[in-house]
Amino acid sequence: MRLDTDPYFSRYAARVQGMNASAIRALFALTARPEIVSFAGGNPAVEALDLEAAEHVAAAVIRETGTVALQYGIGQGRPELREQLVEVMAHEHVPAHADDLVVTAGGQQALELITKCFVDPGDVVIAEGPTYVGGLGALASHQADVRHVPMDATGMQVDALDDLLGQLQAEGRRAKLVYTIPNHQNPAGVSLSVQRRHRLAELAVEHDLLILEDNPYGLLDFAGRIQPSIRELVPDRVIYVGTVSKTFAPGVRTGWIAAPHPVRDKLVLLREAADLCPATLTQMIVERWLASQPWREQVKRFRGVYQEKAEAMLSALDEHMPEGVSWTRPSGAFYIWMTVPDGIDTSDLLAKAINHRVAYVPGRGFYADGSGGNQLRLCFSQPSPERIAEGVARFGELLQAELELVRAVYGANAPAAASRPNEGRGGVG
Amino acid sequence: MRLDTDPYFSRYAARVQGMNASAIRALFALTARPEIVSFAGGNPAVEALDLEAAEHVAAAVIRETGTVALQYGIGQGRPELREQLVEVMAHEHVPAHADDLVVTAGGQQALELITKCFVDPGDVVIAEGPTYVGGLGALASHQADVRHVPMDATGMQVDALDDLLGQLQAEGRRAKLVYTIPNHQNPAGVSLSVQRRHRLAELAVEHDLLILEDNPYGLLDFAGRIQPSIRELVPDRVIYVGTVSKTFAPGVRTGWIAAPHPVRDKLVLLREAADLCPATLTQMIVERWLASQPWREQVKRFRGVYQEKAEAMLSALDEHMPEGVSWTRPSGAFYIWMTVPDGIDTSDLLAKAINHRVAYVPGRGFYADGSGGNQLRLCFSQPSPERIAEGVARFGELLQAELELVRAVYGANAPAAASRPNEGRGGVG
Repeated sequence: MRLDTDPYFSRYAARVQGMNASAIRALFALTARPEIVSFAGGNPAVEALDLEAAEHVAAAVIRETGTVALQYGIGQGRPELREQLVEVMAHEHVPAHADDLVVTAGGQQALELITKCFVDPGDVVIAEGPTYVGGLGALASHQADVRHVPMDATGMQVDALDDLLGQLQAEGRRAKLVYTIPNHQNPAGVSLSVQRRHRLAELAVEHDLLILEDNPYGLLDFAGRIQPSIRELVPDRVIYVGTVSKTFAPGVRTGWIAAPHPVRDKLVLLREAADLCPATLTQMIVERWLASQPWREQVKRFRGVYQEKAEAMLSALDEHMPEGVSWTRPSGAFYIWMTVPDGIDTSDLLAKAINHRVAYVPGRGFYADGSGGNQLRLCFSQPSPERIAEGVARFGELLQAELELVRAVYGANAPAAASRPNEGRGGVG
Repeated sequence: MRLDTDPYFSRYAARVQGMNASAIRALFALTARPEIVSFAGGNPAVEALDLEAAEHVAAAVIRETGTVALQYGIGQGRPELREQLVEVMAHEHVPAHADDLVVTAGGQQALELITKCFVDPGDVVIAEGPTYVGGLGALASHQADVRHVPMDATGMQVDALDDLLGQLQAEGRRAKLVYTIPNHQNPAGVSLSVQRRHRLAELAVEHDLLILEDNPYGLLDFAGRIQPSIRELVPDRVIYVGTVSKTFAPGVRTGWIAAPHPVRDKLVLLREAADLCPATLTQMIVERWLASQPWREQVKRFRGVYQEKAEAMLSALDEHMPEGVSWTRPSGAFYIWMTVPDGIDTSDLLAKAINHRVAYVPGRGFYADGSGGNQLRLCFSQPSPERIAEGVARFGELLQAELELVRAVYGANAPAAASRPNEGRGGVG
């Protein structure tokens, strides 16, 4: 038996070594070195939390309710936690009842369960291009046929979605889901305009669509602005995903799905097959945190932290980036999406960048079709404003040198980076 | 769009309403009533834990390492925790290196990830009959073709496995996995004899098999006896699953897989697609518990608690059960497997039992082929010895009355309970 070459594995697992997550994992290992300014990982600034309060919450949960907290729970998650999560949704004006919710191990498990609930191998799922690498991972793990809709500064180009839906209809195919991150999208750092939200809701009705609305960042708008959720506009057609990873902490792995009840029932059964139930201990810590701590104030503090970092990055980019490089200007959350001139391949450039003690995530991981070779994601949530300025300056120098090299070799006719098989050209910025 | 009837769902999800987990969930809801003696849920006796120590461990983790504990981690799980889990395995003489391990959300996620790694729809997986309902749930959720091997008082009948392997070969098919719970099996309450373990290991080599060895209960032998693991005998052919649910607490959802490295690598990628990483907070609590607390003494305390309960149940069964009822005699862990005379269907009987203020799990949930209609599982881990005696007495009365009814209606020719479609006859006991 040769497990490394054997057809023993499932069809998906046999292929999985090429998965994007693997490259990003290898990268994370390198970027943990202290001398490197990492714009790679999307880690929230948990150091801005009231850790003493968190300690007291955890201790009280075990002291007062230990035999419950350490025992098995139910697959849907604790009703008391779901009530609190409804409050979090209400703070964003997203309507929900605790009955609609399934507690998940972070947003990622929500995406996995929803995919398993709807997608058989080869089924079409429409996603923004670029989109969340973990969403693509969940979709790939169920062998979805992902079709991208390009984005611009106001999010998914809904007219292009309309075209794609027409094209699918002509092919006799139907999209199982339309996956969107409307607020401060990962990785594009842009939000869907209000007008487009309404048009997306209309298209959902016209084309009998289910929308997978993933909203990790809605509360992190720098100005505290709240945009209407798609769930608010067409509740029966939306499967909504939330998480406390960015408003409390990712280390408790707590997210949720709000879904129409026939879908919720399936999801609970799928969840039981996946891991029985969410950890009661972390559920009770989150529910007590939300019930007893000023979490709305905490969210404001996070916003302030990220806004300062975003401003530091944007002004460093304005100062240090050579001509021909463009990027998005986020109004919330963690990310800036950058497009570099033809002739530079961001996957190939990464090793040099790390050598220059700065790291990012290459663009290809954010597309299912191999696009994004001339794009990359910068995340500013972790380094201090000073380190951000330092890292951007280093990266600007590197890009300047690369551009000179490209011009010296190719003159004005540099080849597009997008020269790999099945490759398209990424959008945004 | 009619989500309750629509072919929108994946093929698996469309069928999932019939899943066994659903019946058990409905049952759990009823059996939570205090007047009912529940032998249904397999909950460990967490009240026997040192809760004060658990509180201090959780508080110290956040106080001393909060910014790590509340942050994302890596998909494989923390190296420090994996080192501690290797110690737990060593206590059972199971050889492993921390590198071999993937931390999972309890044993259930381990079974789900392993299934996803190996099973495409229709692939054959061999399992003991009866077997763990959650294992069957994970296998069903990937549309495995489960074939059962009967059991007796010394576990899986390995000769019958040999026959089944020959039969599959004749069909031109091959089993992807052989799933076994060698120690104090759930639900049968029996262990695989040492001789059969060696024969199983030989068969694995002869037939080029992968063994899925699930070992939640190995440390809960009442006499502290340790049996050789299959991993010890043929390490390259075993994917081993452990959990802290029964030796520490299920509320932290912490289990693990030890696997040959090519399999481990796939599992880490599948895990990242499933939920990114295990919760850092609960990982650090478990690792600190294992590193700082006398967990081997705690395991001994658990053994004593369960042994007392097992003895209470066995002597009550001897006293109260009518003739024709048989059951297994566990030497460890939580479960007794009972077979009732023909004419009684344990699924149908459950409502009456709950009416008599006693609950169990009907046998059919523990088979993929509809067997088990005349069998049931009794779990003694939760009620006190007094309540156990009370519950068994009530159940004995009910069975006596049922048997009289069956004899009055059918005389000596009572029909077998196993009269549903695709139904076989369960073994054990």
